Amino acid sequence: MSLSLLLDHLKQTAALGQVAGLLSWDQEAVMPKRGAAQRAEQAGAMAAVIHNRNTDPRIPEWIAGIDRSALSAFDTCNIDEALRVHQRATKIPARLAEESARAASEGHRIWAAAREEKDFGLFAPALKRNIDLKREEAACLTEPGAELYDALLDEFEPGARTAELLPLLESLRPPLVALREKIAGKPKPNPLSGHFLAAGQLAFAADIAARLGYDFDAGRIDTVVHPFCSGTGGDVRITTRTDEADPLNCLYTTMHEVGHALYAQGAPDPFLPAADYCSMGVHESQSRFWENQIGRSRVYAEWLYPAMSKAFGDIGVDSPDALYAAVNRVETGFIRTEADEVHYNLHVLLRFELERELISGALEVEDLEQVWNTRFKRDFGLDVPDPSLGVLQDVHWSAGLFGYFPTYSLGNLYAACLDKAMRTDLPDRDEMVRSSQMQPILDWLRQKIHGQGRLLPAPRLVEQATGQVPSAAPLIEYLDEKFTRLYDL
Amino acid sequence: MSLSLLLDHLKQTAALGQVAGLLSWDQEAVMPKRGAAQRAEQAGAMAAVIHNRNTDPRIPEWIAGIDRSALSAFDTCNIDEALRVHQRATKIPARLAEESARAASEGHRIWAAAREEKDFGLFAPALKRNIDLKREEAACLTEPGAELYDALLDEFEPGARTAELLPLLESLRPPLVALREKIAGKPKPNPLSGHFLAAGQLAFAADIAARLGYDFDAGRIDTVVHPFCSGTGGDVRITTRTDEADPLNCLYTTMHEVGHALYAQGAPDPFLPAADYCSMGVHESQSRFWENQIGRSRVYAEWLYPAMSKAFGDIGVDSPDALYAAVNRVETGFIRTEADEVHYNLHVLLRFELERELISGALEVEDLEQVWNTRFKRDFGLDVPDPSLGVLQDVHWSAGLFGYFPTYSLGNLYAACLDKAMRTDLPDRDEMVRSSQMQPILDWLRQKIHGQGRLLPAPRLVEQATGQVPSAAPLIEYLDEKFTRLYDL
Repeated sequence: MSLSLLLDHLKQTAALGQVAGLLSWDQEAVMPKRGAAQRAEQAGAMAAVIHNRNTDPRIPEWIAGIDRSALSAFDTCNIDEALRVHQRATKIPARLAEESARAASEGHRIWAAAREEKDFGLFAPALKRNIDLKREEAACLTEPGAELYDALLDEFEPGARTAELLPLLESLRPPLVALREKIAGKPKPNPLSGHFLAAGQLAFAADIAARLGYDFDAGRIDTVVHPFCSGTGGDVRITTRTDEADPLNCLYTTMHEVGHALYAQGAPDPFLPAADYCSMGVHESQSRFWENQIGRSRVYAEWLYPAMSKAFGDIGVDSPDALYAAVNRVETGFIRTEADEVHYNLHVLLRFELERELISGALEVEDLEQVWNTRFKRDFGLDVPDPSLGVLQDVHWSAGLFGYFPTYSLGNLYAACLDKAMRTDLPDRDEMVRSSQMQPILDWLRQKIHGQGRLLPAPRLVEQATGQVPSAAPLIEYLDEKFTRLYDL
Repeated sequence: MSLSLLLDHLKQTAALGQVAGLLSWDQEAVMPKRGAAQRAEQAGAMAAVIHNRNTDPRIPEWIAGIDRSALSAFDTCNIDEALRVHQRATKIPARLAEESARAASEGHRIWAAAREEKDFGLFAPALKRNIDLKREEAACLTEPGAELYDALLDEFEPGARTAELLPLLESLRPPLVALREKIAGKPKPNPLSGHFLAAGQLAFAADIAARLGYDFDAGRIDTVVHPFCSGTGGDVRITTRTDEADPLNCLYTTMHEVGHALYAQGAPDPFLPAADYCSMGVHESQSRFWENQIGRSRVYAEWLYPAMSKAFGDIGVDSPDALYAAVNRVETGFIRTEADEVHYNLHVLLRFELERELISGALEVEDLEQVWNTRFKRDFGLDVPDPSLGVLQDVHWSAGLFGYFPTYSLGNLYAACLDKAMRTDLPDRDEMVRSSQMQPILDWLRQKIHGQGRLLPAPRLVEQATGQVPSAAPLIEYLDEKFTRLYDL
């Protein structure tokens, strides 16, 4: 009885969480611009409602009344998650939860305008407000003396700690820098060229999404400024964007978001916490796997080359090999989301460093643009020409998402671990990808990852799926091998 | 202090109400079909949250602590509305509020499928569930011996009672039937003809909407099966539909929904109850006014004819007069939303009669299709060929909206009252409409209706706006004059 009351409560809270997620999707994809002020109030009101439900004092009472001895692993996990969320929420004042949601909604709008104007000063006050709120939230959650940032990281990557994550991710830097330097002296492959109509790109992207296994009866695709995936179960929406000079932006953005969406469409239950995604790192492993290990592979280029030629005519390269080289062109650029696999994690490391300092107080918002530019020069050797190519490029901080960035690199790391194990389990995988017959690949992920919910913490889930404790080695091996061949190093 | 606590509570509840409204818009306009089951849970959860806030015992405590002597009329109305909603909500169990919302969401989906299949039997169980829930709700709200239906009517038309409304609306029947019979013997004007591409119709509709004063920065237009308007303040969305053989469907649907939207965009505050719309009858007066008194007027045809000819080429009629006759063609048909002004209220009266009997228990769901068909024959002289043209044509009952239909006719009645008064206040109105310069007309409505919120009950609001107690006379005069000239009676 206690269990069913608890589960009913959790289901309804999850349904409200889905509604809050829909508000964000709507804001990005379809909301008229004058709706912004009301939307901030709506987001704040939903956050207050959800916070109120998460802090309900009946939750620990129900849990105390449950006989755990006869429970399934699934329901044990539901209970553990319920308690974890409850304990976390009870430390945060309702006012703060509501204010953070409102600030995130407003901050996002201000960021978009500032990015348009290429003026960091327009965004700085909203960013400062978000940081103040996040520091306050972290302080509520942290024992005195512990690092504030870890409390925020824990929201996205349960159980992760900076002290362990930082050396793991920093261990990527030396081999990536070495790889970049070896490539620097080599001739660059030709990029694609041509004019690629937006409508044609979107039709092609939708076709690719369906071929990867994305269920359009349980989703839809829209265009936005900063693409994302939203929802779970029977309603999982992806977004993309188009650049008529560059079809790869839309293509790989779509494959990335489809990777997230396949995870969400494969959730074993749309409402219960044990069926929720394991961590953001695992979520990013899914998006990056489909984008890179599949989408940027040599064998997929054999399918992609004739498909793109049919869809767009002359694409400026003349063979699957040339396409493979073009989609893996290594070039130092300003934008994280457009970065090649060699540079991508260096972009993440910069943000990870900066956001830890913003949260600890070591870095002030007023200095952020200059510090970004200085460190970007340090890490990438380039002068940032304007903040839309620098500190204003990412949406995350505008929406109060601190502690999210490192999960991208963790995702890359996990994706490589999964890729390695999958190749052993599916010896014919290259043949499947070459013919775009992805079902066995999806089935493998459904069984090993999607169907597992959050029964295990992320590192244990990856270990269970791969038989190996996750490490950076598979990612480095994968990148070394791929780019050594591609660039004849 | 009590007042500000109360107003904060009301604002947040209103924000959550807007979120619930967005769920409905999303369900109709963009939701993927496999999202339906989760959506029903989400709608139920939102209804439970809103019900819980409306029954908050602090509401009467705050109100008791307010010194009313120094309050503005606006805040007095906020308090009165808060108390009315609180008292109403406290009579309804939370379980019932939640179950009704879930049933409405599910019922709508089942209705859409049944209509597609033209099979009333598929819909009957869901309809029965909605009726049972509405009867239960009405019983909670009604004193023993009073009519259950009035409690439902009161939700849409506060203060209205069947005992007064029925004779008022039935007084329309004899003159409408007489008008129809006089017209029956006359030659019919030519309809439009041609092929009107959907994209062209939507572009034309958007242009019309903007010219009527609809603010696209605070709204958007989408296509749906059953058009509606949703939202308030800075986010008011309209929907329409297209039929490539008949551009009038899209045109007048759009003008109708724009009429609703102008009211909602003109709300003096997006969150406070005193600023909310007065009643559904008044809301329908706005949609019907723009659709009929403006959109189907002789002078508007002078603007519309060249505009449509420019947009679509040959439209099958050759002058403004011929267009005016075509958009006012009187023809007995099956569908309410496509009915001419002579038939429209007869369609409403049929539904008003049936839904009162469904709620009283005098009519059972299993008999509804047959009774609909029998009475349709009685009122319209036609045999209903299939239920998509009969009992399954309207969305309302599927979504639990009982007590809504009579507000359409009340809206027609109020629209005619407002039209008459406006013509006195704006002697140049014909010139404005002839050149599609609508701003003074919108300004008049903004001042007299939109800006008044619900400070007055609907009949008093219309009386204040027009200087006359509202009655059926202006509508009958308007229709008699219009159709006597058009059909040379």
